[in-house]
Amino acid sequence: MTVTVGQLAELVHGEVLGDGDLIIAAARPAADAQPGEIPFIKDGKHTQLHQQCRASTAVLPPSVAPNGRSLIRVDDPLDAFVTIVRHLHCRPEPAPHGIDKLAAVHSSARIGSDPSIFPFAVIGEESVLGSGCRIHSGAVVGRFFLIVDDVTLYPNSVLYDNTVIGDRTIIHANAVIGADGFGYRLQNGRHVKVPQLGHVEIGADVEVGACSTIDRGTFQATRIGDGAKIDNLVMIAHNCQVGRHNLLISQIGIAGSSTTGDYVVIAGQAGIVGHVHIGDRAVVGAQAGVTKDVAAGERVLGSPAAPERDMKRTLMSLEKLPEFRRDLRKIKQHLGIKDEE
Amino acid sequence: MTVTVGQLAELVHGEVLGDGDLIIAAARPAADAQPGEIPFIKDGKHTQLHQQCRASTAVLPPSVAPNGRSLIRVDDPLDAFVTIVRHLHCRPEPAPHGIDKLAAVHSSARIGSDPSIFPFAVIGEESVLGSGCRIHSGAVVGRFFLIVDDVTLYPNSVLYDNTVIGDRTIIHANAVIGADGFGYRLQNGRHVKVPQLGHVEIGADVEVGACSTIDRGTFQATRIGDGAKIDNLVMIAHNCQVGRHNLLISQIGIAGSSTTGDYVVIAGQAGIVGHVHIGDRAVVGAQAGVTKDVAAGERVLGSPAAPERDMKRTLMSLEKLPEFRRDLRKIKQHLGIKDEE
Amino acid sequence: MTVTVGQLAELVHGEVLGDGDLIIAAARPAADAQPGEIPFIKDGKHTQLHQQCRASTAVLPPSVAPNGRSLIRVDDPLDAFVTIVRHLHCRPEPAPHGIDKLAAVHSSARIGSDPSIFPFAVIGEESVLGSGCRIHSGAVVGRFFLIVDDVTLYPNSVLYDNTVIGDRTIIHANAVIGADGFGYRLQNGRHVKVPQLGHVEIGADVEVGACSTIDRGTFQATRIGDGAKIDNLVMIAHNCQVGRHNLLISQIGIAGSSTTGDYVVIAGQAGIVGHVHIGDRAVVGAQAGVTKDVAAGERVLGSPAAPERDMKRTLMSLEKLPEFRRDLRKIKQHLGIKDEE
Repeated sequence: MTVTVGQLAELVHGEVLGDGDLIIAAARPAADAQPGEIPFIKDGKHTQLHQQCRASTAVLPPSVAPNGRSLIRVDDPLDAFVTIVRHLHCRPEPAPHGIDKLAAVHSSARIGSDPSIFPFAVIGEESVLGSGCRIHSGAVVGRFFLIVDDVTLYPNSVLYDNTVIGDRTIIHANAVIGADGFGYRLQNGRHVKVPQLGHVEIGADVEVGACSTIDRGTFQATRIGDGAKIDNLVMIAHNCQVGRHNLLISQIGIAGSSTTGDYVVIAGQAGIVGHVHIGDRAVVGAQAGVTKDVAAGERVLGSPAAPERDMKRTLMSLEKLPEFRRDLRKIKQHLGIKDEE
Repeated sequence: MTVTVGQLAELVHGEVLGDGDLIIAAARPAADAQPGEIPFIKDGKHTQLHQQCRASTAVLPPSVAPNGRSLIRVDDPLDAFVTIVRHLHCRPEPAPHGIDKLAAVHSSARIGSDPSIFPFAVIGEESVLGSGCRIHSGAVVGRFFLIVDDVTLYPNSVLYDNTVIGDRTIIHANAVIGADGFGYRLQNGRHVKVPQLGHVEIGADVEVGACSTIDRGTFQATRIGDGAKIDNLVMIAHNCQVGRHNLLISQIGIAGSSTTGDYVVIAGQAGIVGHVHIGDRAVVGAQAGVTKDVAAGERVLGSPAAPERDMKRTLMSLEKLPEFRRDLRKIKQHLGIKDEE
Repeated sequence: MTVTVGQLAELVHGEVLGDGDLIIAAARPAADAQPGEIPFIKDGKHTQLHQQCRASTAVLPPSVAPNGRSLIRVDDPLDAFVTIVRHLHCRPEPAPHGIDKLAAVHSSARIGSDPSIFPFAVIGEESVLGSGCRIHSGAVVGRFFLIVDDVTLYPNSVLYDNTVIGDRTIIHANAVIGADGFGYRLQNGRHVKVPQLGHVEIGADVEVGACSTIDRGTFQATRIGDGAKIDNLVMIAHNCQVGRHNLLISQIGIAGSSTTGDYVVIAGQAGIVGHVHIGDRAVVGAQAGVTKDVAAGERVLGSPAAPERDMKRTLMSLEKLPEFRRDLRKIKQHLGIKDEE
């Protein structure tokens, strides 16, 4: 498929500066785009990338100066570029699939309008799905499940019994929601399982990444607030209460009964011990190990985690350690202090 | 469903102190319980929680003083509370499901009495399952598999060929048992796969968490001892020999050929290098990086891991580093020692 | 099954030294092998193991001296031992399974010769598979997928739409290829999803471990080079470009848009931030946290990662910290310098 710069500008309600008749064959990131292709430049920080770009044209915000070639001016270049990529490269979204005859939907389950339930998906007893749900192949929805509208469960994701999921939430492939919490007590030399009788409640507009796990509560709900975004391979343990609009990056773990406020960011591979609270808008650095409460708005780093300023000072001192060592030796020599044997 | 305090006491063989006719509508953790609800208090450490609790009654051990409201006295309040939660909130366990007509059971497989094999579960050639097994939807059991009685495989868990599993073991959703170990050798500039011809043997009363992976041995069995409890997203590499009654917390990794004794605890996100031994009852701290053997009973922390006492001393000194730096500067000034350029 | 040492020697084109008529019943690693069994000794480093081994015979390279018992001399003992283990213990590979009647293959998909497509596997619209592919139970291949010859997808692995996979590549159980990258932007207090319109391209001879996840690019391909070997529970984020013949050990994570050269090794649980480059043949230590580019051939350790030599010096100094502290106190005392209050 090829189109002109002018046609693309019309598609994204942008303004053409320069030659609108140029033929465009592909949309690509600015670093890769070639003549005959169109990239986008997000903002003024990427002006240099734009100057060096070999593409015939670009989608630009008003803050970026032209580079002499034709361009499409828009207020939101990312949004416009998404539209262009979809137009040039993506197939249209297929119509609702209906309930595939190879799916296993329990006779007592209730399914809303316009469903897409693919082969080998399973919907358990008395589960209720809202309208427009996409349950991909092999996804397993347990018994007494409740999801509202426009939810997507990608292939082979598993939702144990009694899970509740809000509107527009997306669960990626092989994620597991509602497995038993890790609770035992030692009796006569054996770890005896504490039955995990709670469930998981996930809010609206949440996204859960591939192979992430959110365990059910012991006697209550493990909760994920509206708008939280959870990356791949994340572990959220039983009884945790995650606030709204959190960003939980890949491979982090939150141990049992910990809670986060709203707009918390936890960077990759960090770990949070159990029974602590991370305040609103706090930021936990990558690979940090949080062992106690973090105040609202605080930024912590390191393992054990400490406020960013303290940790940076410690890290700087750490680099100086070999130098300290030489200094100490010199001073002791100077003073005639001998090392103890 | 509502019941009286007296009826609940009878259910858990407890003694009522106060008003046995109070109506109870829900069981909830003490921090959340409201009037008309029942919580439990585990032990004397939670006496304050009990004093502040708004619930009408509680399940208490003899060690906790009454708070003026009615109560149910029992020796094991957790056990009693589990019974009460089940009674008030949980649906009865369904009867064995039988072999679903949508499951794929190989004609040569042997299945014990009272099976529950759900839609799209797969049982491979010549596999043998004991009695009372629950093989949930999409779980895949390879060829020549052997499990004994009362085993639960949650949805979409995968057990490669030749896996052996002991009585009452539970494998959670999307866990993978018996994938190839990570073994290669460099030949002519390529990493050539060393065939992984071993298998995995898991003992009795083991629990393996969601999305955990236990790789098969190269020429032998990777083994997990009886009673070991493994959390979510744990990696156990080829040829490892895990002892009995270990607790392996979420996101830990044990590299190839390492071994653990009995009652070892490895806390979240810790890593163990290959070919080391962790002795009986040793405890490895969260995010620790173990690079050598750990003696029986030892507690190690940090990366690289060191005995807890040493590591705590180092961490304390670490916090003092900026102070050391100031001291050194002061001393050098005092002595007229100049920094080298 | 039992065979003689002579028969095994013939099987592996080796030379018998000693009694070729000994009966061998099992092949086992040298540390475990008993009389009547056969182990292998890889090279001269394991001579002592050979001396102590109780087995009746062994497969040895020319570099290892006999221990007085009969032996089979070969140039490549690992290769010979694999052949022997397969002969003694392994069942023959089954013939191609064909397309199982319980699989869901879209009518528009094209399947090459000699396929093995097992029950409940799904092959999406317009997908193309080469010859000799093994698509195990519950594996889900999305739409517009392209794989070439001799590819293995283990049970319940998931490949989203538009994935491309090269010859002989192996994807282990529950791995997820092509889930959405973790891309959002904050608009009016909400994290709004940036559509992830790219895909994943995996080269030839790649192996991806169980429960690993490789996310699709935003507007381009996330790429994995030929011959790369990826262990279990690894996270590779959107837009990453992994070079050829990398070894990426278990539980590592590479954040968005980072790139690696050829023959890079990243050890277990290490993390790489986004937008950095790891040069050819660089080695990243276990649990390291890489925050900036790593030069070709460099070895880095620690979090934040530093060149191995610097980090080892820092670690050595770190152990001396309590001693530094005592020294400083002594010097200050000597000089009459008082601590500030």
